[in-house]
Amino acid sequence: MKIGIVGLGLIGGSIGLKLKSLKHTVYGITNNSFNTNKAKDRKLADIVSQDYSLLKDCSIVILALPIKDLLNPSQDLIDSLPRRAIITDVGSVKTPILKIWEKIHPLFIGSHPMAGTEEKGVSAGNIKLFDNAKWILTPTSTSDKKSIKVLYKLFESMGCYVSIESPLIHDQAVALISHLPIYISSCLIETANIQDNINILELSRKLASTGFSDTSRIGGGNAELGVDLAKNNTKNIIHSLKKFKANLSNLENILENGNWDLLLKKLKESKQSRDYFCK
Amino acid sequence: MKIGIVGLGLIGGSIGLKLKSLKHTVYGITNNSFNTNKAKDRKLADIVSQDYSLLKDCSIVILALPIKDLLNPSQDLIDSLPRRAIITDVGSVKTPILKIWEKIHPLFIGSHPMAGTEEKGVSAGNIKLFDNAKWILTPTSTSDKKSIKVLYKLFESMGCYVSIESPLIHDQAVALISHLPIYISSCLIETANIQDNINILELSRKLASTGFSDTSRIGGGNAELGVDLAKNNTKNIIHSLKKFKANLSNLENILENGNWDLLLKKLKESKQSRDYFCK
Repeated sequence: MKIGIVGLGLIGGSIGLKLKSLKHTVYGITNNSFNTNKAKDRKLADIVSQDYSLLKDCSIVILALPIKDLLNPSQDLIDSLPRRAIITDVGSVKTPILKIWEKIHPLFIGSHPMAGTEEKGVSAGNIKLFDNAKWILTPTSTSDKKSIKVLYKLFESMGCYVSIESPLIHDQAVALISHLPIYISSCLIETANIQDNINILELSRKLASTGFSDTSRIGGGNAELGVDLAKNNTKNIIHSLKKFKANLSNLENILENGNWDLLLKKLKESKQSRDYFCK
Repeated sequence: MKIGIVGLGLIGGSIGLKLKSLKHTVYGITNNSFNTNKAKDRKLADIVSQDYSLLKDCSIVILALPIKDLLNPSQDLIDSLPRRAIITDVGSVKTPILKIWEKIHPLFIGSHPMAGTEEKGVSAGNIKLFDNAKWILTPTSTSDKKSIKVLYKLFESMGCYVSIESPLIHDQAVALISHLPIYISSCLIETANIQDNINILELSRKLASTGFSDTSRIGGGNAELGVDLAKNNTKNIIHSLKKFKANLSNLENILENGNWDLLLKKLKESKQSRDYFCK
């Protein structure tokens, strides 16, 4: 198939490399000449250009753009998308993207590949990114059935576990397990970084070990992404945050009352619950 | 030197293996015959026994016991410790241990090796556990100066970065960077494990990826240890928890007010602050 990819960063570049290896012809769009050259060097697509007209013969176009660009697509991009092509995106929040894109294009199907590394940009793409990754399709009642099937098969052929989910449920689930942890983790860093006692701060910095490092990792991640998610999944994130705060207050009571049996029960439950999330 | 180790679990067993490799003679005490046999098989010490009289000729005895056993030492253990031997422990909270042990033994110096894995028990010890680890000594005004020096050199010879800190500061610092993350992480798991919407729960379990896995890791750790720490560093943990809650409420306000510039600033600060903790 002739497949277009708009944006050749970590996700777009990785898709390009993988689809090329599967013998598709890949047309990649970048946003400046530096990235075009770099993407050509790295052979992220068969043809790389900044010119959207490159997409005119594609039967599938994957919009591998940041959420904020997906929500404010340029007229040039919109005009360049073939009306008969299947269009999908890779954004990690689905409802606001669908709201815009289902109006723009008749064959738009939202999707979300659950894969990532700390890297970003045209140098980040790697062919193994999607090996055994989960890729969620979030069609709605108006989505074209055949297009869903085509994308399902395509992502499966890339080595992914594909599943079909409601966009509303998707956004609530990612608020809990993907977005909420970012803000909690950031607050933990803020709390540890106390400025009112330099002795504690210095020792804390010295003693911080794997426990702190793991728990704080995503709080020290891509700040722009953290804002994009908060902006576009606000209601669900606030809802999760309120539940988290209630659980935290409950824990505070347990500590203040020295209810150690209950604490033991809760920590054992955490261990058990976690096994269902992290198999 | 003749060095005794009471308890040959992850920490005690690793100390035994390392000290043996440094040509010390290591006497290891276990609490039952199964562990004695296993420790002998694994050669965790030169001589392994359940009999405390084994310690009588040791010039250093390391109490590698769980906090709860350190706080309730048996009279047999106390009676078996040579009065001229230097005694230290490996507990991760220092103030309550010092309160008891400085009365029991004139040459007791508290210490805390910052090392660990998910493993526990006599099968867990490994010779590399302390390579480049931090090992904190927490002497007080009444501690024997020579004993501090001897332990400092011993831990350094084991490949550790040794430092001397106040026990009070130590307990406040570990509350922040080592204990608080456990309870936050546990609350995150509890929050994600929502039972009121099975669709969200199932999808959350399916989508949970490295971000959730890292942030929840220590909340799904050793529950007994989590209770031991809470019991013995209660005041400092509650203090840290209150600061964390205040930061979280602040973040909630930012989200509710859609103050995205401030959120970006905070997330960027987190990234920067974290670099000082996780070098």
